[in-house]
Amino acid sequence: MATLEYRNLDRTAAFKKLKDLARVDLHSALTVERIAAYSMPMAAGLTFNYAARQVDEKILAVLAELAAEQQVLAKYRALAGGEIMNPGEGRMVLHHLLRGQLGKEVVSEGKNLRVFYEEQRGRFTRFAEAVHGGSIRGSTGKPFTTVVQIGIGGSDLGPRALYLALQTHAASHPGAMKMQARFISNVDPDDANETLRGLDFESSLFILVSKSGTTQETLTNRQFVLAKMRAARIPGLTPERHMIAVTSETSPMAKSKDYLDSFFIDDFIGGRYSATSAVGGVLLTLAYGSRLFEAILKGAHEADLSALEADIRKNPSLMDALIGVYERNVLAYPTTAVLPYSQALIRFPAHLQQLDMESNGKSVSRSGEPLAYATGPILFGEPGTNGQHSFYQHLHQGTDPVPLQFIGFQESQDDFDLVTEGVTSRTKLAANLAAQIVAFALGKSDANPNKGFAGNRPSSLIYGRQLTPESLGALLAHYENKVMFQGFLWNVNSFDQEGVQLGKVLTSRILKGDGLDPVIAAYAKVLGVI
Amino acid sequence: MATLEYRNLDRTAAFKKLKDLARVDLHSALTVERIAAYSMPMAAGLTFNYAARQVDEKILAVLAELAAEQQVLAKYRALAGGEIMNPGEGRMVLHHLLRGQLGKEVVSEGKNLRVFYEEQRGRFTRFAEAVHGGSIRGSTGKPFTTVVQIGIGGSDLGPRALYLALQTHAASHPGAMKMQARFISNVDPDDANETLRGLDFESSLFILVSKSGTTQETLTNRQFVLAKMRAARIPGLTPERHMIAVTSETSPMAKSKDYLDSFFIDDFIGGRYSATSAVGGVLLTLAYGSRLFEAILKGAHEADLSALEADIRKNPSLMDALIGVYERNVLAYPTTAVLPYSQALIRFPAHLQQLDMESNGKSVSRSGEPLAYATGPILFGEPGTNGQHSFYQHLHQGTDPVPLQFIGFQESQDDFDLVTEGVTSRTKLAANLAAQIVAFALGKSDANPNKGFAGNRPSSLIYGRQLTPESLGALLAHYENKVMFQGFLWNVNSFDQEGVQLGKVLTSRILKGDGLDPVIAAYAKVLGVI
Repeated sequence: MATLEYRNLDRTAAFKKLKDLARVDLHSALTVERIAAYSMPMAAGLTFNYAARQVDEKILAVLAELAAEQQVLAKYRALAGGEIMNPGEGRMVLHHLLRGQLGKEVVSEGKNLRVFYEEQRGRFTRFAEAVHGGSIRGSTGKPFTTVVQIGIGGSDLGPRALYLALQTHAASHPGAMKMQARFISNVDPDDANETLRGLDFESSLFILVSKSGTTQETLTNRQFVLAKMRAARIPGLTPERHMIAVTSETSPMAKSKDYLDSFFIDDFIGGRYSATSAVGGVLLTLAYGSRLFEAILKGAHEADLSALEADIRKNPSLMDALIGVYERNVLAYPTTAVLPYSQALIRFPAHLQQLDMESNGKSVSRSGEPLAYATGPILFGEPGTNGQHSFYQHLHQGTDPVPLQFIGFQESQDDFDLVTEGVTSRTKLAANLAAQIVAFALGKSDANPNKGFAGNRPSSLIYGRQLTPESLGALLAHYENKVMFQGFLWNVNSFDQEGVQLGKVLTSRILKGDGLDPVIAAYAKVLGVI
Repeated sequence: MATLEYRNLDRTAAFKKLKDLARVDLHSALTVERIAAYSMPMAAGLTFNYAARQVDEKILAVLAELAAEQQVLAKYRALAGGEIMNPGEGRMVLHHLLRGQLGKEVVSEGKNLRVFYEEQRGRFTRFAEAVHGGSIRGSTGKPFTTVVQIGIGGSDLGPRALYLALQTHAASHPGAMKMQARFISNVDPDDANETLRGLDFESSLFILVSKSGTTQETLTNRQFVLAKMRAARIPGLTPERHMIAVTSETSPMAKSKDYLDSFFIDDFIGGRYSATSAVGGVLLTLAYGSRLFEAILKGAHEADLSALEADIRKNPSLMDALIGVYERNVLAYPTTAVLPYSQALIRFPAHLQQLDMESNGKSVSRSGEPLAYATGPILFGEPGTNGQHSFYQHLHQGTDPVPLQFIGFQESQDDFDLVTEGVTSRTKLAANLAAQIVAFALGKSDANPNKGFAGNRPSSLIYGRQLTPESLGALLAHYENKVMFQGFLWNVNSFDQEGVQLGKVLTSRILKGDGLDPVIAAYAKVLGVI
């Protein structure tokens, strides 16, 4: 294997070339032929279509050079093979290994980590089966029917997005919906109070999720839930027997008697990359069963494999990443929107917002050098058609173009649909999506400038037959891999998050009343803290 | 009254001056004295603090000149008094009148519109009381216990944000929680299917909300719900007797026999400004009672009055608007984030995203002239502390500063709180907020650049004792008025949305198979539409 070299984007030959290439105008570029040509299969039956993005043959050729120059595939292989790809924290980056073996085995302190992850999955699968079968029950003897995830950030957004994405799917498949889920994330007591309102504690199982076992919000909410359960004064109720933990083996939460059981991850699974680990797996297996969770892993693994492909025209995550860098650093677009035409994906953009912005919202290179170019964009989004009646006005006629990432499906999750005005609701949904892509790309001139659309607003489209566990897993991994590739292109460490530390330190100083800066004290005072 | 003049921002003398003024560096600017001085009371006991925004006395003086030059207060008074302030559609803009009389009476076709809005409120209040009292019941005789809002865009986001914001408040006040609410917005059948799952139709009341009575999604979902109710084959169930309408008097939905009752708005209440009209009022009065809805109106009216103040240092909405324009057009920040430290405000940023981006995401002036400067920013946000564990990494250490709008409260909505590590959850929440403002403004240098924080990242803070119906109403109106003032400063029409039309036209063409452009046909085909 060639030695890996790390260089900043602006020191590559390809980047200098890219800036000099003629820009693409979609008014003339977007043709039927291009829609067929700028399309490639993804994992799990999905398709990536980039016909409406502002690239052409010349730009794509230089983007391929850029990928080669930045050695993105070799870096991905190194990452999957267990090299330290999170240098700031001196850690491996192994979320791909949760889904399958991509290359050589990864052994740490004599432990094969693929085996370790699978062991944990086996453990929580058996636990979930015992819960579903009724051999593990609440402390008063009632079966567990509701699962409540207590976690924040990566321990909340990804698992919640996946849970919501499959709620209708599970409800439409007899026997697939095993438990209802709720979530507590915020340290705001109104979050826990509202989530616990009306909850039957006797049939509720809480999952405490914190890799470090020290997350302030999560530990506070654990105490909060315990206090609420005690305050309910239910005869025979033992709150600790309603709590399980997902944490690392070395954390203070591990193997404590405070939990009915504990399931483990390790330091090589970053929070925002942990949805396919026990962090998401315990919840999803309890809620929907192990077969469904396995299908997510299968789709994700397939996407991980497709990301190993060297030809950018056959590697959707790499192509998506490269075009995103072109949009950010050549076209200078500061934002991007993810717009799923699928109500089930309602919180998927919130997950991607963390995934993308926390990974690549960095100003220094991997080696700590200040960067002279923009890195990760601001990412936001809501499902269509809802967004059409909200912020699309700005996307169509605002002063700044926003590259759009559409997602759509040919079938709904629920079979029930209705023909009105001669077509089903699903057909209306998909027709809206097709119309939007073209409206953004081609625009429309009008004698009244207020009714004119400039067009040439770029978008890509990921589509498939249906949002299933497999295609959801593939979608999740596609974005994880896209973000990873962009990190390699920008030469940043996509796997640390030092930017969250200062707030934690200052908060702790306020709460301890410890040598407070007068400015902090002034804010703490108006907020009623001190 | 002086004649109103409309000029583009870049033709004002103040804007030219503004660009030449020295920039503010918060590292040195942010002092205890400034935190006290750059603060002003808002309506309903709230406070607006702008100490951590990048302005100083010189900049504020020129911003005051800009406000005067653009005649923003005179335009607001004209708007409140019934002048045609939505010239594209030839309409008045009267959402302030829903909350109270600000100036002279507004009479249209012989009708005093304040009286009309109050009549409608009286009508839906009496209707809600009859539902709560049990004299209006479902068609099989069961009392109505759940209300389902069917609407999209402004008929969904604002009402839903307000409903969620007061759920814990209502649950904490005995007797205040009268009905549970659910929502259907998307034309995706999975939205309606999931919302209707497990719903007891016999005790459910549906509110169909569409001003025009022609909104595709809402009419489709009406049919969808009717079909589902019929399919349930409940003896004696008459679906139409479970539906009420909120629409304009001239719409096809008005006074139809298909509805149990209808309540009216008019063309002068824009969708995104309609939360305090019957669009939000019917839902909120059914869910929480008329006293609570009146309190929202009271808080909003108080904010509307405070926005009439000529001194920018006493007018929080105007100050917020002016600083926002300075950030957008002088400091060239393309985005802004709204970060409420209150779980109850979970969907408030989504409402503001529509309010702000649909109003001011425009590229032409009020008179249709192309603008040479940026207008409304991209707005996004999630509640704190959740966001801290998600995208804050980017806000702290990303390459592009994002002006932040924090919101916080001294008390929770629910009384139950817990002391852990010596402090309550609420105190932890507020301490996090205070810490973040200072972390963003002052940063921290570090020998390791990866752990360094550049600081000088601006934020404002709106805070109050508690999120109540009054303070929520004030918050809502504050942002409405901020957006209105920014529209005057940018000289755009903040009250139309021509940018949503093209997508509708193309969708309808696809669904009719009517002379399809081959490019649209190609997209429609891959999405399974044709």
